[in-house]
Amino acid sequence: MAQQHLDPTDPTAGPVAGSALGDYLRSQATEFLRALRSHRETGATAGGSEEAVDAARALRRSARRISGSLHTFRPLLDTEWSEQMRPELAWLSGTLALEHACAARLERLLHALHRLSGSAAFPVRTPGLTIGAPAGPAVPAPAAAERSSLTVGAAKAGALLERQLTLARTRAHSTALQALGSSRFHAVADKVAVLASEVPLTPAAAGTDLRPLAAASGERLTAAVTALPLVTAGHPYNAEALVHGLSPDPAPHPQDGPWHQVRLLLRLHRYAREALYGDDPVDVRLLAAGQALNRHRDASEAAAAAASAARTPRIAPATAYALGVLHADQRHEVEAARFAFHQSWQKQTVRTP
Amino acid sequence: MAQQHLDPTDPTAGPVAGSALGDYLRSQATEFLRALRSHRETGATAGGSEEAVDAARALRRSARRISGSLHTFRPLLDTEWSEQMRPELAWLSGTLALEHACAARLERLLHALHRLSGSAAFPVRTPGLTIGAPAGPAVPAPAAAERSSLTVGAAKAGALLERQLTLARTRAHSTALQALGSSRFHAVADKVAVLASEVPLTPAAAGTDLRPLAAASGERLTAAVTALPLVTAGHPYNAEALVHGLSPDPAPHPQDGPWHQVRLLLRLHRYAREALYGDDPVDVRLLAAGQALNRHRDASEAAAAAASAARTPRIAPATAYALGVLHADQRHEVEAARFAFHQSWQKQTVRTP
Repeated sequence: MAQQHLDPTDPTAGPVAGSALGDYLRSQATEFLRALRSHRETGATAGGSEEAVDAARALRRSARRISGSLHTFRPLLDTEWSEQMRPELAWLSGTLALEHACAARLERLLHALHRLSGSAAFPVRTPGLTIGAPAGPAVPAPAAAERSSLTVGAAKAGALLERQLTLARTRAHSTALQALGSSRFHAVADKVAVLASEVPLTPAAAGTDLRPLAAASGERLTAAVTALPLVTAGHPYNAEALVHGLSPDPAPHPQDGPWHQVRLLLRLHRYAREALYGDDPVDVRLLAAGQALNRHRDASEAAAAAASAARTPRIAPATAYALGVLHADQRHEVEAARFAFHQSWQKQTVRTP
Repeated sequence: MAQQHLDPTDPTAGPVAGSALGDYLRSQATEFLRALRSHRETGATAGGSEEAVDAARALRRSARRISGSLHTFRPLLDTEWSEQMRPELAWLSGTLALEHACAARLERLLHALHRLSGSAAFPVRTPGLTIGAPAGPAVPAPAAAERSSLTVGAAKAGALLERQLTLARTRAHSTALQALGSSRFHAVADKVAVLASEVPLTPAAAGTDLRPLAAASGERLTAAVTALPLVTAGHPYNAEALVHGLSPDPAPHPQDGPWHQVRLLLRLHRYAREALYGDDPVDVRLLAAGQALNRHRDASEAAAAAASAARTPRIAPATAYALGVLHADQRHEVEAARFAFHQSWQKQTVRTP
């Protein structure tokens, strides 16, 4: 089965001591603090948007890695500390991710509208996602010449999405600002500062081989992948992702759930490998599978945003029509992402043992 | 190149004499007359719909084959006769095809709406397409229980399409009835009756090998296929068919044209092979490629019908949204059909010489 290939335990390599986990957590905590410092310095200046975006991304990145390691290597860490820390890190990275997600979703949808309008690719620029700098509209409106190539419906749909997602982004921006100024955040930052020098490993951790715990994360991933409808996903144009596209249920497609779950498990597994072996060499196949699942998530949420915009009262039929086309287009992106995941996963499992 | 594999001239077989063309045209003319007789007998009775549909299909079938042979083997037939006959046969099969096309389009669209609504497959029954019997609604409205699973938008979109395409079908039905009662039709039927016993071959035809002319039809097909964007079509989820999905141009997608053209050339080539070798054994790959192109045409026209319905004044936004989803769904069917064509065509060309 695939399991053995996902097992980060290279049979030719020896055991990995628990001290490697200590090193990994310390380095991630250091990254977190560096990103936080950079964010405070750059976020204050209006022109520092690019750096502030990078800093916010780096903050999320290390928060996710620390949180993931706490989960995968739970038995080797102080239980009470670990159980307090994880939800706080999840809250933080979730809060910081929201603004970026709104902006990225709008960019994806406007790009798709332009593609569907048959206009030449145009540069949809997402200005720096700055936490600490005022949030303008996420994506500038297409120039007049570009807009003229859209039907009225597509242009109106674009304007509606821009309004709704910019509002959501502004709210997410305020929430993130509040979060970063809260005592709750300061408590997390203090704990990460301690972690940078002192990792609360259990007494037994130092003598424990990390490989079985990392392997277990691979097994959880494999089990979840096995439960996916991969045979269907491997058949191009199976039209599965758009089933229920017009169902009365306004909730996101329930069929997407297991794929989102695999995305999280794959990420946890990737971090576990990182803790053991660093990220060099990167497993490109695991990376490709992860990228397909990110695309799946993004398209799924973009499709939901188009459907949600179509429920706005009093929109013109032409606007609704364009949003319907857009929704279906993104659901096909969902299907395409599943196909891409299937392809990269197949490569993974046929890899020589 | 593919050409040699498409060449109906089996190199192990000998030349095919022009008399085979005479036999083929005589047998198709006989089929035509039998279908016409059957249609007159069954079309009169109200309960004879099933047979009347079969008869109309058989009429179209033989008209297309006679017309196609007149084109492919033009140099072997009396020019004046041939040039008079072809447009009349094209008029006849085109007129007879329209009613069937409207009904099939509605069936396809209602099926898609049900799929998109996430309702279980339900039997969309197309009552017999009868020329000579009154044309009722092509597809019965879904039962109340099935309808309840649709959103309001999907149900309204379905009702709108049903209204519009049933009207188009009724008109096509009247036109076909008028055509079959016209002196123009009787003139064609008389000519076909003569053809059943006496094929106007040129004096040289009997001694001519049919294979080069049939091969030329294969070459025209191959040349047209070569001009298709097959590399793109072979990449699943290339999102090409929906480009321009929201463009202001209400005309059918111009990108579909070359595919429609290949569909016609493939049909001509298939008939040419039939004239030489009969339809036993059927070339299943050529058949599969042809079916993919039929699906391409059907989905293309269904997508256009959904877009056209969305331009109906004063429809509800929910209806327009459903039509947008439906349009995009059918454009993805177009893309899927191109992929399927690519797959069967590849099989064709890798066939051992």
